[in-house]
Amino acid sequence: MINKIKKLQNSLADGSAYLIISELHNFYLTGFKSTDGALLIDKNNAYLLVDSRYIEACELAVKHCKVVCFSRLFEGINEIIKSDNITTVYLEQDNLCVSASNAFCAKLEEAGVKAVSDNTLDKLLSELRLIKDENEKLKIQKAQEISEEAMLKTLEKLHKGMTEREFALELEYEMKKLGASEVSFDLITISGKKTSMPHGEPDESVIEDNSFFTMDIGAVYDGYHSDMTRTVAIGEVNQKMCDIYSIVLEAQLTALEMVKAGVKCSDIDKAARDIITEAGYGDYFRHSTGHGVGIEIHEKPGVSPSCDTVLEEGMVITIEPGIYLPGEFGVRIEDMVLVTKDGYHNFAKLPKELLGYELADK
Amino acid sequence: MINKIKKLQNSLADGSAYLIISELHNFYLTGFKSTDGALLIDKNNAYLLVDSRYIEACELAVKHCKVVCFSRLFEGINEIIKSDNITTVYLEQDNLCVSASNAFCAKLEEAGVKAVSDNTLDKLLSELRLIKDENEKLKIQKAQEISEEAMLKTLEKLHKGMTEREFALELEYEMKKLGASEVSFDLITISGKKTSMPHGEPDESVIEDNSFFTMDIGAVYDGYHSDMTRTVAIGEVNQKMCDIYSIVLEAQLTALEMVKAGVKCSDIDKAARDIITEAGYGDYFRHSTGHGVGIEIHEKPGVSPSCDTVLEEGMVITIEPGIYLPGEFGVRIEDMVLVTKDGYHNFAKLPKELLGYELADK
Repeated sequence: MINKIKKLQNSLADGSAYLIISELHNFYLTGFKSTDGALLIDKNNAYLLVDSRYIEACELAVKHCKVVCFSRLFEGINEIIKSDNITTVYLEQDNLCVSASNAFCAKLEEAGVKAVSDNTLDKLLSELRLIKDENEKLKIQKAQEISEEAMLKTLEKLHKGMTEREFALELEYEMKKLGASEVSFDLITISGKKTSMPHGEPDESVIEDNSFFTMDIGAVYDGYHSDMTRTVAIGEVNQKMCDIYSIVLEAQLTALEMVKAGVKCSDIDKAARDIITEAGYGDYFRHSTGHGVGIEIHEKPGVSPSCDTVLEEGMVITIEPGIYLPGEFGVRIEDMVLVTKDGYHNFAKLPKELLGYELADK
Repeated sequence: MINKIKKLQNSLADGSAYLIISELHNFYLTGFKSTDGALLIDKNNAYLLVDSRYIEACELAVKHCKVVCFSRLFEGINEIIKSDNITTVYLEQDNLCVSASNAFCAKLEEAGVKAVSDNTLDKLLSELRLIKDENEKLKIQKAQEISEEAMLKTLEKLHKGMTEREFALELEYEMKKLGASEVSFDLITISGKKTSMPHGEPDESVIEDNSFFTMDIGAVYDGYHSDMTRTVAIGEVNQKMCDIYSIVLEAQLTALEMVKAGVKCSDIDKAARDIITEAGYGDYFRHSTGHGVGIEIHEKPGVSPSCDTVLEEGMVITIEPGIYLPGEFGVRIEDMVLVTKDGYHNFAKLPKELLGYELADK
């Protein structure tokens, strides 16, 4: 986090500063979660302004910023502006609402400071977020481990009459018992024909026998997300289902093998898409092959036909092709991986061959 | 929801329209949850624009708007602008980020329409949200019922060695099993000295014997929140604790008795505060007496010393005074009530006299 702030400082001229108000980016740059505060970064200093509720915990946790306690936020900002001779302040656009932005701009202008609300700061943050540092990788790894352990524990509870929603609730409960602060997104645990919907919602439908069961799940650990999908067979599944599963798995493995620093995202998407298209199911794979993951579940880069981003070491992306046959069934297989110089580290450890489960008697 | 949209339409001149992009207010006015869509309201029509993922469910659920399926949102908006001769469009400020607002304004101006980003629309929505309709009351009631049933079920599981976080997780799990979509906020389930922190966080601390245990909890049901606090005795508590409890209860009951249409919020706050101050604990009650509840956990009006709002029938507020003695303990008692012509309807049914619980052997 020191490095991230230093990188931001390197892009600043003397007299200029970044004012980061969004909770998301405040956490990203400080590792500390607070509300109603701000992070002010100028060429030489970084100040984290928090109110009295947070001051004790903040001073213990944050060593790479000057922690400032304020009773009125703008007064605290103004003091720093004066002491550090700040004349220009850049604000976020993507995570700041119009009314807050207007209020801060007005107060900055009142204080004789030029307030700049453009995409300068968002672009820098977006670039920084592409590459994960060691600390971030560890948190993502932990989020993934929680997710896998919780999935296995919940699969043990699979029984006749269990609804999709019950499964999702059990899974969330297990994740949280294992240390997740929350789920990465509304967990997708769907069976039967519903598996043909990439974002189907678990409901009171009973998990079907002789059917696919798709689990697209993720946990959040200390602000960082995980993402994984496994499709498993419940009871007996037919040959067509096995064939489709094999095509998706081949597409997933082929795309994975492409992953390394220097490769373009669109080429990875194409590798997966080509296999599915050649097998005759191109029209049934309509989403991107993957996306970045970090402090948000969907980050850059997109692993999509239109994404020109070239992979770099330290990026974290998902590889998740699928085939969805309306009215029949669907298959998606997803791993989350870290891009390395020569390939990738797969955060996901659970097997990907088609596994079969039985619905236990209750 | 028809009435809400009609009220917004009554405030519009011919040729003007409101463009509501925030998911929060989109849901508020349509009862339908979607992302990446928009609600366009002009003098005579209301259009809900959703993409193909939502169209089927949306057409089934939303009867009071014209449901429009778009592939590019702005093209969909533009068609309506032309067909309905719209010349001025008002946008939100509070729930819309700067970059989205700028993008919509630019596209509207390109289309020859005047885009107004000021507080007109936010003020109208804020006023509408103050008064809950029958449908909203039912959802809030259901959220509260879930919350109470889950609390009772979780208290049955209270045992020696149970941590605050375990209790919170069990409670959340029970709420969701009972139909809650989520918790209203990070549940507060704290014991011992931590009860002196109004917003203490449950952690791995074991729930203490011979101590207060504070549960400030709420569930969300179909987008609507509940909020309730109960402080109970675990094992034996001393006389001072009982005395403080009695003062808080008296303050809470006195404030509640003031609630009815026509009374100023600050007067209700004063009623609770006076009792605590007269008992000598005024310095230990530092938060407001309450707040509105609805599609957000904290809404207007504030039941605070500075809030001049006069209560009206249909407002939903909390009454939650507390006394917090640092290093010792704290007590808060909170009900959520509906303001009526002559008084109030208390959504909370659980008793408020000091109840005692024992930690069961595991």
